[in-house]
Amino acid sequence: MGAFDAFVKKYGRQVEEEIARFLRLKAEEVEDQRRKRVIEEIARFTLGGGKRIRPSLMILGYAGSKGVIDNRIVKASISIELVHSYLLMHDDVMDRDELRRNRPTVWKVFRDLHDELYGPEDATHYGYSMAIIAGDLAAAYAIQALLQSGFEYDVVVKAVELMQSVIEKTGHGQILDMTLEKEPLSAVKEGDVLEVHKLKTAIYTIEGPLQMGGILARADKALLDVYSKYAIPVGIAFQLQDDILGVFGDEATVGKPVDSDIKEGKRTLLVIKAWERATPDQRRILERTLGNKAASKDDVEAVREIIRSTGALDYVRNFALKLANEGVSVIENADMSSDVKEVLRDLARIVVERVK
Amino acid sequence: MGAFDAFVKKYGRQVEEEIARFLRLKAEEVEDQRRKRVIEEIARFTLGGGKRIRPSLMILGYAGSKGVIDNRIVKASISIELVHSYLLMHDDVMDRDELRRNRPTVWKVFRDLHDELYGPEDATHYGYSMAIIAGDLAAAYAIQALLQSGFEYDVVVKAVELMQSVIEKTGHGQILDMTLEKEPLSAVKEGDVLEVHKLKTAIYTIEGPLQMGGILARADKALLDVYSKYAIPVGIAFQLQDDILGVFGDEATVGKPVDSDIKEGKRTLLVIKAWERATPDQRRILERTLGNKAASKDDVEAVREIIRSTGALDYVRNFALKLANEGVSVIENADMSSDVKEVLRDLARIVVERVK
Repeated sequence: MGAFDAFVKKYGRQVEEEIARFLRLKAEEVEDQRRKRVIEEIARFTLGGGKRIRPSLMILGYAGSKGVIDNRIVKASISIELVHSYLLMHDDVMDRDELRRNRPTVWKVFRDLHDELYGPEDATHYGYSMAIIAGDLAAAYAIQALLQSGFEYDVVVKAVELMQSVIEKTGHGQILDMTLEKEPLSAVKEGDVLEVHKLKTAIYTIEGPLQMGGILARADKALLDVYSKYAIPVGIAFQLQDDILGVFGDEATVGKPVDSDIKEGKRTLLVIKAWERATPDQRRILERTLGNKAASKDDVEAVREIIRSTGALDYVRNFALKLANEGVSVIENADMSSDVKEVLRDLARIVVERVK
Repeated sequence: MGAFDAFVKKYGRQVEEEIARFLRLKAEEVEDQRRKRVIEEIARFTLGGGKRIRPSLMILGYAGSKGVIDNRIVKASISIELVHSYLLMHDDVMDRDELRRNRPTVWKVFRDLHDELYGPEDATHYGYSMAIIAGDLAAAYAIQALLQSGFEYDVVVKAVELMQSVIEKTGHGQILDMTLEKEPLSAVKEGDVLEVHKLKTAIYTIEGPLQMGGILARADKALLDVYSKYAIPVGIAFQLQDDILGVFGDEATVGKPVDSDIKEGKRTLLVIKAWERATPDQRRILERTLGNKAASKDDVEAVREIIRSTGALDYVRNFALKLANEGVSVIENADMSSDVKEVLRDLARIVVERVK
């Protein structure tokens, strides 16, 4: 096991125990079953799967400055996982996804409950509504967890401020992402797609957690800058690799259908580059296939072939490699322990080498 | 004009200027039109109507302890109005309301925009999605506004903590409210309805704002308790009067249809009490009319008559009066300026006397 996986494995478990404890107390606070089941559902959803990458990176960002890891940072780190849960619950409504990590999504659970208790009429909307509220509750929990973690007021205020800025930027990424899907392929620019990756992945998954940990450890501005300069390219590379796996990955290994990005018309750099370089005939295939939920197997395969033959796949793969290397070079000369550097170096490697 | 209306008029305007300034800066931060229009929509929705009761009460809660009102509390008070905006945007999705304060709701605006730019397919879901994100952004703005208001870290942390607890309780109220509507009338208890009023109105609209202001002014526990003991009964009375106006009010004065509570089957104390006391024949009318969107005018009128003749209307009216008086008696002996007392006394009076 590499340094990153070992780190996540070790601290991920502690994070899960803290989340379970926090949410158990929340559920115990209410008697009424109608309300209790929403909290229990937040716990089921949050604890059911997920690699705890964000809280682990928050703990790592703390260790990078402080040199040690204590119980307070583990307690504080659950806040970013609760934010993740909050945003996923809302995302699943927006995307109407019924499954996540092979388990039913929150709106699906409440739709089914409505079906069972009150009948099918309005069940979907009831499901959406409960998932919106459940997300809003998780957002409040996230802040409470951070405020109660035992850090001094001044750093807590700065960490809450950063967290809100991360949520804000992720929201911007989501607006852009959802709107780009509606626009014609020819109108979407490379810069738009990279901006979505920066907002929705790099800041949210890597920069924000590292910096939140750093802030709680009273890291100086130089280190926070290192985190940022590492996180943005590595985070974008992470998403580019995700896009590659979403089209060319092995379905069983990736754990999700590898034709859905194409059928949903997801605006990835692969697709934008392929479009730029495609012949008129190839563009016709791209236009009729991307975003067509009923696209034939042959057309999906033809899109893959266009992405390959135009060189879009190589372009994106090389770009991701370049970004990951850029991230690694930033940390080499930074003032932090060799252990922390090793974990970050390993993460940058995994990001572009992973097959799932 | 009474003391409360005069107070709200004076500070409501300052609050609106602060909100406009805050959101203008947010819109200026982004270039991309797709994202900018969401922020501009948050501004349109937040600034379009509304009485600014909650920020005014937050300022009042500050004045009750501090004795004076300064610019910091006005800045901080916009946070509770942004929370209000956040929750309303989500509520309008849950209730599928197309109008609020005679203006289109946020999801409706984005549904129409989708219609215009990308066609009608999926327009409603796009509208819901944008309103969910817009609400999430406003939630982040609310915290940012509070953190940036210039108060010391320790009181800011306590105010943020209270704000999140208020959001949490409002969420609980919303879960209960939406679920009670699904249950048969005979299963809904008076205690359930009063709990919804406490969570969704009393804490959210009166207790939370007064206490947040108090906390920022470093009010002692005794004063925070007075705010609470005043706010809970007065807040519940406010909602009971709202329920009365929703059935017996003058449509033109109230500004919304006065048959919708009945047709939507809203679980009000009026209805619960009427059901308790109704004859089998009357119960049949209640059962076939409440929650029946196609109910006839005659049936709606028959429900009004049942609420009157069973004494449910008098019961609720007297209960509201009793609660309002209870609130007033709490403040008489409290240690705060006579000006603040007068505003609170006036609010308790308005709550049960208002016709809109």
